[in-house]
Amino acid sequence: MKKLRRSARLVDMTQHLLAHPHTLIPLTLFSEEYGSAKSSISEDLSIIKEAFESQGIGVLKTVAGAAGGVKFIPQMNANDAKAFMQEMIGLLEKPERLLPGGYLYMSDILGHPQTLARIGKLFATAFADQDVEVVMTVETKGIPLAHATASYLNVPVVIVRRDNKVTEGSVVSINYVSGSSKRIQTMSLARRALAEQSRVLIIDDFMKAGGTVRGMIDLLQEFRATVVGCGVLVEAADVSERLVDEYISLARLKDVDVKEKQIRIELGSYFA
Amino acid sequence: MKKLRRSARLVDMTQHLLAHPHTLIPLTLFSEEYGSAKSSISEDLSIIKEAFESQGIGVLKTVAGAAGGVKFIPQMNANDAKAFMQEMIGLLEKPERLLPGGYLYMSDILGHPQTLARIGKLFATAFADQDVEVVMTVETKGIPLAHATASYLNVPVVIVRRDNKVTEGSVVSINYVSGSSKRIQTMSLARRALAEQSRVLIIDDFMKAGGTVRGMIDLLQEFRATVVGCGVLVEAADVSERLVDEYISLARLKDVDVKEKQIRIELGSYFA
Repeated sequence: MKKLRRSARLVDMTQHLLAHPHTLIPLTLFSEEYGSAKSSISEDLSIIKEAFESQGIGVLKTVAGAAGGVKFIPQMNANDAKAFMQEMIGLLEKPERLLPGGYLYMSDILGHPQTLARIGKLFATAFADQDVEVVMTVETKGIPLAHATASYLNVPVVIVRRDNKVTEGSVVSINYVSGSSKRIQTMSLARRALAEQSRVLIIDDFMKAGGTVRGMIDLLQEFRATVVGCGVLVEAADVSERLVDEYISLARLKDVDVKEKQIRIELGSYFA
Repeated sequence: MKKLRRSARLVDMTQHLLAHPHTLIPLTLFSEEYGSAKSSISEDLSIIKEAFESQGIGVLKTVAGAAGGVKFIPQMNANDAKAFMQEMIGLLEKPERLLPGGYLYMSDILGHPQTLARIGKLFATAFADQDVEVVMTVETKGIPLAHATASYLNVPVVIVRRDNKVTEGSVVSINYVSGSSKRIQTMSLARRALAEQSRVLIIDDFMKAGGTVRGMIDLLQEFRATVVGCGVLVEAADVSERLVDEYISLARLKDVDVKEKQIRIELGSYFA
């Protein structure tokens, strides 16, 4: 056992907490790791707590008692979230993003690790109190967002496939009507991918009428799961009938003028 | 400008460095942010450097001169890497993972954020010196691995689609022969997804004959890109002719006895 000085402890505890969000860490873990008294560890933690809060990293929750410890909850404060999404909207409104059918090209944004981390942290902030056990999405574009969110909640991701050629053993499939094509499509999830009665957060990149999200909710019923939340990056505003009631969006695609190549986007329901 | 004490600086600099790997950070950024002298920042950095190295987090490289600063390179040392992969192999050898065709069920592992982070850090360690500009993979199962790797290299991810129904503007498609089905299949990438002459790292979850990776390499030629590396989590050992020459694997599927439900896996070429 190597005995660490306070400065080295602060560095290592910071990285440990950041790597294990939403996880109760007993103080004994740190005191044994560093050969330090619990009282010293407590002082270290109050320094970290203050720095995390003043720098907008998140909060440290202390749980007292024999089974106690400390838990890091990543949090993006409202001002940072708004500033970040307004910056994103500036990027998203560029005319060259316009795709046929009123969709937006977002693959560059959904490929960028720093951007993904921020969106993931924002979703994790929004659903921090929902005791999320699993994040679910459907292939393909939602996957990076789901993983970014799950890494801040420290829960696994389950990916629904858009076909039933999945070689993953027994599979549950359902049909759904995609809002874009109005065609009946199939989505599938391996039986073993999700424990029954899991608490599931649905994450996706884009929602029009909500047919795909509705499909995921129906699929989850087959696993007797509870949908504890649904978050989409961008929702389309011009929808006559929405198939999903409860969700948050980070941005709302207000208006698309294909001829003039103009895109108008505003902050989504999360900021309302 | 708020002036921070050393302890608070250490916490915030640690999180900043962890969030911006492979990025040159000028010391002035920290000294202005914290209202501290550069000499104090230098002392802070040497404390962080020592802690990062002794705790196996990575290395801090100092670049001298006017355009200088500090760069955090995540590194998993050889012992930690081996111990982690041996633990993974223990999980992967469980008989219930066996799927038809000699494939392994790995979706649970590829969904777990802590596991993904370790695999990503391992790939980022292996390819740290290749000046990777983009990580590329093909949908679906490789995506989480590609993003985990890219977040440690701090570069974007580009996802090749398995169809050509992609609504992303002008698309480059090629045909390839999948090793598993021996059928001709199509893969596509939007023209705007990848700048010409990019330095690309290919990441995938599983490789048999290498038809899919070969397809990605061929596709990259259309973008005049340079393949600077290829990493797969698991490769199959019983392959008569491999279509890819240069790659590293973290694990090798040595032997599958479908009747006896036995799986034998060993460390991959990275550890040779």
